[in-house]
Amino acid sequence: MNKRTLVYILGWVLFIEGVSMQFSTLVGLYYGESNFRFFLYTGLAAIVLGLIIIFHKPKRFEMARRDGFAATALSWIVLSFVGAIPLCVSGQIPSYIDAVFESVSGFTTTGSTILVDIEALDKCMLFWRSFSHFLGGMGVIVFLLALIPRLGGNAGINLMKAESTGPDVEKTMPRLRTYALILYSIYGGLTVIEMILLRAGGMYWFDSITSAFATAGTGGFANYNNSIGYFSTYANGYYLQGVISVFMMLFGVNFYVYILILSRKLKNILRLEELWLYLGIIVFATAAIAVNIYNIYQNAFDSVHQSFFYVSSILSSTGFAIDNTDKWPAFSKSLICVLTCIGACAGSTGGGFKVSRVLILIKQARKEFRLIIHPRMVSNVTMNRKKVNHTVTRNVSVYLIVYVGIIVITTTLISLNGFDFTTNFTSVLATLNNTGPGFSIVGSAGNYAQFSIFSKIVFIFNMIAGRLELYPLLIIFMPRAWRKN
Amino acid sequence: MNKRTLVYILGWVLFIEGVSMQFSTLVGLYYGESNFRFFLYTGLAAIVLGLIIIFHKPKRFEMARRDGFAATALSWIVLSFVGAIPLCVSGQIPSYIDAVFESVSGFTTTGSTILVDIEALDKCMLFWRSFSHFLGGMGVIVFLLALIPRLGGNAGINLMKAESTGPDVEKTMPRLRTYALILYSIYGGLTVIEMILLRAGGMYWFDSITSAFATAGTGGFANYNNSIGYFSTYANGYYLQGVISVFMMLFGVNFYVYILILSRKLKNILRLEELWLYLGIIVFATAAIAVNIYNIYQNAFDSVHQSFFYVSSILSSTGFAIDNTDKWPAFSKSLICVLTCIGACAGSTGGGFKVSRVLILIKQARKEFRLIIHPRMVSNVTMNRKKVNHTVTRNVSVYLIVYVGIIVITTTLISLNGFDFTTNFTSVLATLNNTGPGFSIVGSAGNYAQFSIFSKIVFIFNMIAGRLELYPLLIIFMPRAWRKN
Repeated sequence: MNKRTLVYILGWVLFIEGVSMQFSTLVGLYYGESNFRFFLYTGLAAIVLGLIIIFHKPKRFEMARRDGFAATALSWIVLSFVGAIPLCVSGQIPSYIDAVFESVSGFTTTGSTILVDIEALDKCMLFWRSFSHFLGGMGVIVFLLALIPRLGGNAGINLMKAESTGPDVEKTMPRLRTYALILYSIYGGLTVIEMILLRAGGMYWFDSITSAFATAGTGGFANYNNSIGYFSTYANGYYLQGVISVFMMLFGVNFYVYILILSRKLKNILRLEELWLYLGIIVFATAAIAVNIYNIYQNAFDSVHQSFFYVSSILSSTGFAIDNTDKWPAFSKSLICVLTCIGACAGSTGGGFKVSRVLILIKQARKEFRLIIHPRMVSNVTMNRKKVNHTVTRNVSVYLIVYVGIIVITTTLISLNGFDFTTNFTSVLATLNNTGPGFSIVGSAGNYAQFSIFSKIVFIFNMIAGRLELYPLLIIFMPRAWRKN
Repeated sequence: MNKRTLVYILGWVLFIEGVSMQFSTLVGLYYGESNFRFFLYTGLAAIVLGLIIIFHKPKRFEMARRDGFAATALSWIVLSFVGAIPLCVSGQIPSYIDAVFESVSGFTTTGSTILVDIEALDKCMLFWRSFSHFLGGMGVIVFLLALIPRLGGNAGINLMKAESTGPDVEKTMPRLRTYALILYSIYGGLTVIEMILLRAGGMYWFDSITSAFATAGTGGFANYNNSIGYFSTYANGYYLQGVISVFMMLFGVNFYVYILILSRKLKNILRLEELWLYLGIIVFATAAIAVNIYNIYQNAFDSVHQSFFYVSSILSSTGFAIDNTDKWPAFSKSLICVLTCIGACAGSTGGGFKVSRVLILIKQARKEFRLIIHPRMVSNVTMNRKKVNHTVTRNVSVYLIVYVGIIVITTTLISLNGFDFTTNFTSVLATLNNTGPGFSIVGSAGNYAQFSIFSKIVFIFNMIAGRLELYPLLIIFMPRAWRKN
């Protein structure tokens, strides 16, 4: 493990976080909240510490795959623990473990909360929660790559691989820094468009900005106890919720699609199997749930509106809600659990198992059945008309093993609270897939306040593991990984 | 697909089932039940039809892997549908779909029942239910292989592979017929020992015999509404339940272990990783659950007795109960769900995912992590100190994909009933893993009576898919498999 480079990366992470906190300082000052000072002081401390580290540059940037994984995992842990300080020290979330939970939930874009009354929070705190979604969505490391030219090359690729979502980063990657810049431009651009559309629909600027941040990162923290259901009372309620539904869906799409659109390679989009499966799942699930919940809403438009909003929210792993879905029928709830697990597209800001991995697994199974029927047939797994490398399919298989393993083990650990099975199981799905709401106690109208400290630690583990796609977080717990090369 | 051989196999299956039914005829006659005649007539019809087919021997026995799979799957379907006839026509289970459910549950050694009052059944029916467990446990095809010398060779191996449990049949297999005979001898021998031990403890012969059959096949059909809890009122209640606990555990062991014991190769047993993991899981789960349920039983002995009985029952996929485990705390219930999925050892009569598959998956994941840390390291998955073939590990990975896929899809389908999530999820686990009881409505004191016909069909699919380990049943639904070579 190259510890010098590792510490250097952490220095940059601290610096970026410290600077980010000053946005919350400004929000606090604007609204006349005395709690602004906790962002100011914590942020300044992070900036100073960060700069000290940054000025001790390592001579060479070396990062093997495991180093990239460890650096990314540690970056996220530092990010979350430092981000929790203002929430805790201000007394708005008095317990530090609760504050860390909330902070991790923010950066990992999960959106699960331990808060019983969100509306009691200061605006600067609400802003910080939403901004953490924005920073965590595309990833702080990707931001770093856009920022620091020297990190290009081997070191950067291994960092990028650790933080990006999906089975593998596109092989035909342009220069790393350019790529990171393009990603952040698209990300920022879409976010600004959403802000403007929300503001145009009559939402206040504060809500427009924070809701857009939370949508962009597919996070799900809202400023109101009824989540986005709060805006149902607005004159343009349907419009506002509709805009958010569409943008949740858009942020769950592989950003490669937007690059193709910008470079006018529209034909190539037709070939992207993952995109079509993602859109297909949305259409199918929206229709199935709309029919299933028709009895509750007694109105075709409302049923489709409700269904599309929640399907888009869950599949993209955002977790916003506009109604208490715990009252929905069993079939809709089951389907929502399935969507929770599938998650968004690779290369998006969304969480979950990822549509492309599901696709690769289905194709692997199909290949195996073909081999049983025709043992001597040569059959390959293909994706977008290209052969999928054997390493990738094996990696996806093992991903499933680890994913199922974590679900099984953590559900059992969470059950020590003595809550019902639905709560235990769906809370694990909601955290590991970075979605946010589950059912029963952790339903869309519930929260994570009642869990024991031990359970909250398990959830924190799940959220980070889910965001970094399992391997990076697990690697740092292996003594073998810390030995010298 | 070689249809001639296929039909020939089905002829033998019909013949064996017809003969088996005559045991129930005798039981009915002995107890003076008029319903004996349904076994007599159905059995005779099966024998005659079977003999007609058998006398039209195909000239050559040819069976590719897919043919073996299809023949096995169809055998089990025929077995179950014919086995349901006496239950239904006698009026004891008036609905044919219910009778098929009960029959499938019997042959696949699941032990789930649609009966609300088991004790209302005639003794000849109860006997048939238990005997179906015995026949299904080791497998009717294995019995056939022991019976018909001509089926040796390639055709037989592909049949054997389809019906045996676990990732792969031992490569160093002796002559197929000898092997099948040895297996059935051990199976029969252990069953008789259990019968005698139960009788010695004061159980009536009828209960001893049927309970031993149900234990041997790791089935779980009992003659009483309280399952094995009925015997708690007996003077030797603890002894009887203890004997059954131990034998459930024993029938969940790979029968290869007994062959090693009989051939005095005790040293080789020490090397069998699966066996030790299986025993380790039993010890760990028994201890954890005993501590967790101590508050309910207020007594260390009872807690361990209850815990060991149910752990042994669930891990071996038997499903017998001595108390209503639905009142147990959430942690114990979660752990029991995990045991349900893990299941017994390969090459046993038990169901589930199988301990050896779990072991291979863990080793695959470990190998992947090592590769991340040391990318150039050559690492192999080994089992019992031997290298595991790449085909086997890939096969196990795909097994997990299909297994998880079936759980996800069938849970969603079952949720159309509108029952709670625990019921939907655990009923799917209990049927797919051939265990029997789940929790909530399908808890150890519940049954499957309330489900819709559609759900029962889904369960029937799950039970057969689980018993034949997924591939054989799925293959017959693929048009591709039925095309000429």
